[in-house]
Amino acid sequence: MPEQNVTPGPIGASADGEGFATAADFPNVKFDSRNLVPCIAQEWTTGEVLMLAYMNPESLRRTLATKTMWYYSRSRDEYWNKGATSGHFQYVHELRYDCDGDTLLALVDQTGAACHTGDFTCFDNRWLSSPTGERAPFLASREQ
Amino acid sequence: MPEQNVTPGPIGASADGEGFATAADFPNVKFDSRNLVPCIAQEWTTGEVLMLAYMNPESLRRTLATKTMWYYSRSRDEYWNKGATSGHFQYVHELRYDCDGDTLLALVDQTGAACHTGDFTCFDNRWLSSPTGERAPFLASREQ
Repeated sequence: MPEQNVTPGPIGASADGEGFATAADFPNVKFDSRNLVPCIAQEWTTGEVLMLAYMNPESLRRTLATKTMWYYSRSRDEYWNKGATSGHFQYVHELRYDCDGDTLLALVDQTGAACHTGDFTCFDNRWLSSPTGERAPFLASREQ
Repeated sequence: MPEQNVTPGPIGASADGEGFATAADFPNVKFDSRNLVPCIAQEWTTGEVLMLAYMNPESLRRTLATKTMWYYSRSRDEYWNKGATSGHFQYVHELRYDCDGDTLLALVDQTGAACHTGDFTCFDNRWLSSPTGERAPFLASREQ
């Protein structure tokens, strides 16, 4: 996957040809009362869960059109092309929905780091359980 | 990890000794206006993302006390010890929170299947992107 920063090209029209996408464009997805659905981002190579953020129909359409992750920021109330500021884009390999249609899962190549703190994932070293020192088997091949 | 069904034993008291836990018992976690926080369950051995469900403070306390996942069902409005009905328990290795404190990540041993459909994960074979036939590297050692 390309590692350089990208500027998303033309977004293209929604399924109804009317510009911004609506929930009707994604009949398999259940958006909530705010027109949002949570999306889990997972690293394609290592399997690490990177972060969870929210999408609305238009950010979902932009994601599929550009193959980079577009979220909708609830706090800033705006579209958010992950990496547009930091250069830490997420390039999409797969985008899936769950059995209830109310959660999405994106498998991505993460450039740089997912977390605004500089940690690779947003879950690094933040524990509610007692750390055991065990290493998850699927991470065995990752560098220490 | 034990594979047999378990009946959670005594839950124990909350941090304040008053029975049910409250958000104040988990100062690193931001519960939403419904007193819920989303929790991603990921398989410890394979790294597969299994599902996303919601926890309130008391289900979080029960999870830490019993080392099996307790969610709070929004649709049934009740506590839900995953596996209590199906036998498909999730045994907890790690429980983490993210940089904003508004998402949890549980690494678990999944007994049987996570999805009520019988699929191993809730995301099996449900695609918004076009399937490429590629296999994520972290899954390379998993049986086809």
